[in-house]
Amino acid sequence: MTTLRLGVIGYGYWGPNLVRNFATSSRTRVAAIAEPQASRRQAAAMNHPSIPTVEDAAALFANPEIDAIVIATPIYTHHPLAAAALAAGKHVLVEKPLTSSVAEAEELAVLAARAGRVLMVDHTFVYTSAVRKIRDLVAAGELGRVLYLDSVRINLGLFQPDVNVIWDLAPHDLTIMDFVISQTLGIAARWISAIGVAHYGHQENLAYLTVGFDDGLLAHFHVNWVAPVKTRRTIIAGSKRMLVWDDTSPVEPVKIYESSVDVEHIDKESAYALNVQYRSGDIRSPKLDGKEALSVMAQAFAGACLDGTPTPSDGAVGVRIVRMLEAAQRSLEQHGTRVAL
Amino acid sequence: MTTLRLGVIGYGYWGPNLVRNFATSSRTRVAAIAEPQASRRQAAAMNHPSIPTVEDAAALFANPEIDAIVIATPIYTHHPLAAAALAAGKHVLVEKPLTSSVAEAEELAVLAARAGRVLMVDHTFVYTSAVRKIRDLVAAGELGRVLYLDSVRINLGLFQPDVNVIWDLAPHDLTIMDFVISQTLGIAARWISAIGVAHYGHQENLAYLTVGFDDGLLAHFHVNWVAPVKTRRTIIAGSKRMLVWDDTSPVEPVKIYESSVDVEHIDKESAYALNVQYRSGDIRSPKLDGKEALSVMAQAFAGACLDGTPTPSDGAVGVRIVRMLEAAQRSLEQHGTRVAL
Amino acid sequence: MTTLRLGVIGYGYWGPNLVRNFATSSRTRVAAIAEPQASRRQAAAMNHPSIPTVEDAAALFANPEIDAIVIATPIYTHHPLAAAALAAGKHVLVEKPLTSSVAEAEELAVLAARAGRVLMVDHTFVYTSAVRKIRDLVAAGELGRVLYLDSVRINLGLFQPDVNVIWDLAPHDLTIMDFVISQTLGIAARWISAIGVAHYGHQENLAYLTVGFDDGLLAHFHVNWVAPVKTRRTIIAGSKRMLVWDDTSPVEPVKIYESSVDVEHIDKESAYALNVQYRSGDIRSPKLDGKEALSVMAQAFAGACLDGTPTPSDGAVGVRIVRMLEAAQRSLEQHGTRVAL
Amino acid sequence: MTTLRLGVIGYGYWGPNLVRNFATSSRTRVAAIAEPQASRRQAAAMNHPSIPTVEDAAALFANPEIDAIVIATPIYTHHPLAAAALAAGKHVLVEKPLTSSVAEAEELAVLAARAGRVLMVDHTFVYTSAVRKIRDLVAAGELGRVLYLDSVRINLGLFQPDVNVIWDLAPHDLTIMDFVISQTLGIAARWISAIGVAHYGHQENLAYLTVGFDDGLLAHFHVNWVAPVKTRRTIIAGSKRMLVWDDTSPVEPVKIYESSVDVEHIDKESAYALNVQYRSGDIRSPKLDGKEALSVMAQAFAGACLDGTPTPSDGAVGVRIVRMLEAAQRSLEQHGTRVAL
Repeated sequence: MTTLRLGVIGYGYWGPNLVRNFATSSRTRVAAIAEPQASRRQAAAMNHPSIPTVEDAAALFANPEIDAIVIATPIYTHHPLAAAALAAGKHVLVEKPLTSSVAEAEELAVLAARAGRVLMVDHTFVYTSAVRKIRDLVAAGELGRVLYLDSVRINLGLFQPDVNVIWDLAPHDLTIMDFVISQTLGIAARWISAIGVAHYGHQENLAYLTVGFDDGLLAHFHVNWVAPVKTRRTIIAGSKRMLVWDDTSPVEPVKIYESSVDVEHIDKESAYALNVQYRSGDIRSPKLDGKEALSVMAQAFAGACLDGTPTPSDGAVGVRIVRMLEAAQRSLEQHGTRVAL
Repeated sequence: MTTLRLGVIGYGYWGPNLVRNFATSSRTRVAAIAEPQASRRQAAAMNHPSIPTVEDAAALFANPEIDAIVIATPIYTHHPLAAAALAAGKHVLVEKPLTSSVAEAEELAVLAARAGRVLMVDHTFVYTSAVRKIRDLVAAGELGRVLYLDSVRINLGLFQPDVNVIWDLAPHDLTIMDFVISQTLGIAARWISAIGVAHYGHQENLAYLTVGFDDGLLAHFHVNWVAPVKTRRTIIAGSKRMLVWDDTSPVEPVKIYESSVDVEHIDKESAYALNVQYRSGDIRSPKLDGKEALSVMAQAFAGACLDGTPTPSDGAVGVRIVRMLEAAQRSLEQHGTRVAL
Repeated sequence: MTTLRLGVIGYGYWGPNLVRNFATSSRTRVAAIAEPQASRRQAAAMNHPSIPTVEDAAALFANPEIDAIVIATPIYTHHPLAAAALAAGKHVLVEKPLTSSVAEAEELAVLAARAGRVLMVDHTFVYTSAVRKIRDLVAAGELGRVLYLDSVRINLGLFQPDVNVIWDLAPHDLTIMDFVISQTLGIAARWISAIGVAHYGHQENLAYLTVGFDDGLLAHFHVNWVAPVKTRRTIIAGSKRMLVWDDTSPVEPVKIYESSVDVEHIDKESAYALNVQYRSGDIRSPKLDGKEALSVMAQAFAGACLDGTPTPSDGAVGVRIVRMLEAAQRSLEQHGTRVAL
Repeated sequence: MTTLRLGVIGYGYWGPNLVRNFATSSRTRVAAIAEPQASRRQAAAMNHPSIPTVEDAAALFANPEIDAIVIATPIYTHHPLAAAALAAGKHVLVEKPLTSSVAEAEELAVLAARAGRVLMVDHTFVYTSAVRKIRDLVAAGELGRVLYLDSVRINLGLFQPDVNVIWDLAPHDLTIMDFVISQTLGIAARWISAIGVAHYGHQENLAYLTVGFDDGLLAHFHVNWVAPVKTRRTIIAGSKRMLVWDDTSPVEPVKIYESSVDVEHIDKESAYALNVQYRSGDIRSPKLDGKEALSVMAQAFAGACLDGTPTPSDGAVGVRIVRMLEAAQRSLEQHGTRVAL
């Protein structure tokens, strides 16, 4: 099999992007689109006259000409749709986050393992050129020992009707953290805490999350729907170098600073005294490859299904992210108490 | 009495700035400088040939020609020096933070009250033109209901030998918050929590603080000595407008955004559904008066001592700030648990 | 007649944008597309299945169901195509610049006048929300007396095979200047000078243009295909206020500075001595309407053809712009000598 | 002789900076200050109690304890003072520009040569860490063939009473150009042209200068006292790399872009067709040494006088700069006609 034949469920906000990328990717073909709303089916037909549309997703599961199912529907429908797709022997790609609970996510992972099928989550950010470059820098030891990750992801954003800002925005940061820290350095997050506030209604529109690793590695996230300026800034500080990723800057999104702190020695007489030296030097902004993230993700899914190539957003990662989200939610309800992962 | 005659204790890092400003302020005169180190006394004599220097601060307390004492010495000496000065009937200005414990701070406040003397803290930031402008905007209701305050104060900074980053940098943010929120809106902080990490030695070099008020008003601070880029950015979001203060920008430090969220109504059928509207509009950067903060602070101290004019950094404020620092320290040691204020 | 039926000639680089906007505009309908290249006709048919395509533009001229012709072809073909369209009684919209010579441009203007048909040029920039806002500010006298206009339009850009950087980039700046200065203030450009250099081959890739008006109003343009950073910055300075338009800034493209110079009086004893005062104050960034420029332009063309509404890029303006380009070219060949307009 | 004993003439705007640097430089000593205004002599005495002040510069010339004269007085006094100093056998450092005419400048150069004394101009900018770094990059061939230099030096600046903006601001750019291009690459400027306008009074407050070299190397300068935003941006484009120097940026003033244009070949059939390729890549911001420019300049003057070390701002350079200024002035009066150098 050299071409993966896909059925896409959901043609709302994100579905059109997925269809467009899978339709133009070299190893995939969109065989059908399932969408219950008539107006959206019409839009799909207009944009892709050659792709048939159906109302009911069940038609995709029953279709032997379809190898894999792409699910771009509201989060609470992910589990039943994915479970049905896996039961029908299809590979599955699910919009992020994988599910709305760890129990559901783990069940899907088990079902996929039993069925010998691919379960993957569309953690788009880990396929961006910026994050792939950052991962490479961390993997190559360019930063030295990683000290902390600090991310600010705020803007005047759309209130989501059924989720709070943590479930809406934090998956981006947590998947990036999982990819760059956990998968690259082989270390696991130990605990998470979250503080938030709902200024309008019941859903938190502002939250701060903290994730603890061993050895003092800390990750902190500010996610916010009510901010005057769009900010997408991630700092990763290491003992040798530090980097800043500004995702709103078209020209120099990633900058590497030759700035670091050197601890010369611990003073013998007093464990409290330190002899620290500061070095700051050149700043470098590496050229990024211009590949579209969704296109890279589409190829990764094709590679996973057709060749068994591992991906950085497989079912196990999807479970980890949902576990962090669920724990963050619990911490939020417990006034920021640390919740073990 | 129209001129306040000052004795300044300490001519190390900050003392020279205080002497320079008090020496040139219209209503104050520096009568003497006390400094135990000979080399620093020489520097004081070179810069201010007409101001006598002494080795021992006791000489200032005993001097009837001195009305007020300015204390610019290490934090652990603030309490004994200020107590002695008040006992000698002098007004007192202390470098921030007031003391290293609430008990000490409260004792000084009591001593000052009994002696009928001014106790003031040099919370320099509340005298800057930017913060005064921000306070005026909040006081005038320009922002509407204040929703949150978020501040980032990070850079590759000097490790302090005897305090962590919270005691070094957070006093700036807490005094600004106290001035702009508590003093202006008449609402008190309820709790504080802090998470931090010491990457080198025993003193935390990175910390996140959260302060809770009633009605969902949240303040959050990121203070950090190990960051690649110097950032001094404070967001204050209100229901009508939001502002961003970038203290590193020489041209437009304060920007006011006509950006807000309007909740039209709570949907009758479901308390969870909101009908929110987003407005974004003009951005305005008000011209700030160019007054040097220390000069404004010097005049405020003179006004407090000579005329009894209230100041936004009196002893009571000083006690509040130390109480927040002490509580943050306790939270830090308890993994971020909220500590009531 | 309430709907303008269009024939579009050329479906290369810019044609698709024009077709898309005219196809979705409320008062226009694209009746046919003429394009000699088969592959481009296929692309047109794919994107717009309901619009017929033809190989030869002559079919559009002969079609009585077509009211107006849109010409998006290489510059040297503008004159014959537009002349034929006008001869067939069609309204005409031509891609910028109108023609490659003043003689041709003037002939088209005469033909249009005789035929009683609209001749308009797609000077897209004058329909952008930023330029319309700037024109409004100038028209309202917000800037006071306009002193100068300075524009930098540089980047690492594509070398055009058959024109130099003046004919490629300067039309944008000259049309903006004509709109904001000449049309709004009723004053005409008097002379133009140009200096340039061809670092590769025969076409200048870097040029500086200066345009003189009466009363010391000067406009200066830097256009450049070989620059490290994309810069699109226009300063318009007035005696009361100044504005900066940064077309690369998504957030605050237009900023208005309360900065000005006041001449108090000319010193009596010496005409050379001036008593000048400087005022600088608030900075304001007005919210722009988010309308797409091409859509506004499409509506303007419809309004011109259907209702006779004047537009800021009619044939007379088109002639003026070509006259300036031709004069700049002559100056370039004469080492920057001023050429009268 | 290991220490250079200096007499400084003029303690107005710039003199204090020179005295401060020469007083603290390791190889120089300020023996006396001459200043006709009593209030300025008092200021000098306050700041430097150990340096005697005199009213009349003649006393410095006559003083055998003085080896060199530093002239920080209005430009029209440079020639008589420098001539007298050279006649008295002193080395001479003159504030920029050297004189107000080429004739005067050349006469000083001749006098210095005859007397065997150093004549140097304080072209401060060529001693800044940024310009020295840029010169090193050009000298090392990092940019490849230099294509052009473009500089913008504008702000809401003080109108000078007796000179226009060219004589006030352009010396900075011309000295930088002379240092980085002429002295480093060994090529001479061939012509200069200038266009300007006086919006207030008789002195031009806005001007554009262009300087031509051989091989199509062009330099262009925008100098302006009436601009809303302070801009100090210099682009130097080369065939291999380009650099941008933003003198207002404290963090990354010099950036080197791996951006260039490659001409693959000239198409055989048509001399007009080019096959160009564009490369853009990493951006690098080198760490600059933090030396104060005036201190480096002071050491260069000491080295020239004591050791005969050549400097990049000697009398010959000073003459060249005045020649360019004089030629620019002539071009300005002739509406921008090129004036040969």
